Amino acid sequence: MSGPAHANYVLPFFFLFSAMGAADASSQCSDNKGPSGSPLVRNISDIPQSNFGRGGLAHITIAGALSYGMKEVELWLQTFAPGTRTPIHRHSCEEVFVVLKGRGTLLLGSSSFKNPGKPQELAIYSNSTFSIPMNDPHQVWNTDENEDLQMLVVISRPPIKVFIYDDWSMPHTAAKLKFPYYWDEECFYEPKDEL
Amino acid sequence: MSGPAHANYVLPFFFLFSAMGAADASSQCSDNKGPSGSPLVRNISDIPQSNFGRGGLAHITIAGALSYGMKEVELWLQTFAPGTRTPIHRHSCEEVFVVLKGRGTLLLGSSSFKNPGKPQELAIYSNSTFSIPMNDPHQVWNTDENEDLQMLVVISRPPIKVFIYDDWSMPHTAAKLKFPYYWDEECFYEPKDEL
Repeated sequence: MSGPAHANYVLPFFFLFSAMGAADASSQCSDNKGPSGSPLVRNISDIPQSNFGRGGLAHITIAGALSYGMKEVELWLQTFAPGTRTPIHRHSCEEVFVVLKGRGTLLLGSSSFKNPGKPQELAIYSNSTFSIPMNDPHQVWNTDENEDLQMLVVISRPPIKVFIYDDWSMPHTAAKLKFPYYWDEECFYEPKDEL
Repeated sequence: MSGPAHANYVLPFFFLFSAMGAADASSQCSDNKGPSGSPLVRNISDIPQSNFGRGGLAHITIAGALSYGMKEVELWLQTFAPGTRTPIHRHSCEEVFVVLKGRGTLLLGSSSFKNPGKPQELAIYSNSTFSIPMNDPHQVWNTDENEDLQMLVVISRPPIKVFIYDDWSMPHTAAKLKFPYYWDEECFYEPKDEL
């Protein structure tokens, strides 16, 4: 029977716990022909995770352009240990976060001036969501001393092209392109010039 | 300090519980000028949820084209009571699911023939992910008798344009466009012909 969902329902509170036995971060690169080559339904626990050389990070690409043949959206699960932060960076794609666990700070600069300037500081917390205005420089920081910060992250226009700033006063034009990004390096094959 | 995330970490197990006092599903339509008009960080518990006239459904648009000014991706939280299912439908956008809670069945037809035909039946379960090949007719069904099925859903190209089938033998050309879709109706304003 199809009873109605409880009227007083939803308001989700996310609660996650970890488990032993993570899959190796060995490559599971797509042939870029789309998801048809992979099992359609996958256990997220079986998807490789790694810190990709960035201390304090655990990253899983749940559905990616290079790992799964996505063309328009990409979905990550990221866990930041206490104190861990992204670089100050920008990208010309949409990005939505859902905080599953923990708390932290979103630092958000501006793309309207020569450099990002002094950023806004916004509290982020379990069961919150936020999206980054396209091209605005930003940084996500687990400012909690004890708890991991865990987020689902959705981006458009994968694979992501990231411009990284040394600090908030660096001109936008000096920010350095990092492409492919850390977790895309393994699966990215650049066409070679053949003479 | 920025200690590394636990090496044995991640393999996320999602576990959600509900709470009382859901926000009203009254309209919070965006002016379509982008997220800048809304608070940047929002508590998902404060976002309106409704069944939008579909028994057994609880839907929240976490970040939407019409509710929040997204242009390239849209993110939903959906809860299906036992027995609840989507219509058989297709859409020409990407769609990724993350199952947060419960279990069910994904029925997946083909876009390669005149009609969807007998669908594949795939088990979906908590902590699984799947994406729907573009334009393939599909149906998501909470086939469990007791537990809610709760999913995060990501789509590209919002707002969604859905073609609905009466059954799996209906020709693709006969599927009926439902646009705006149920949860977009409140915020969708069609330009009027003015004579």
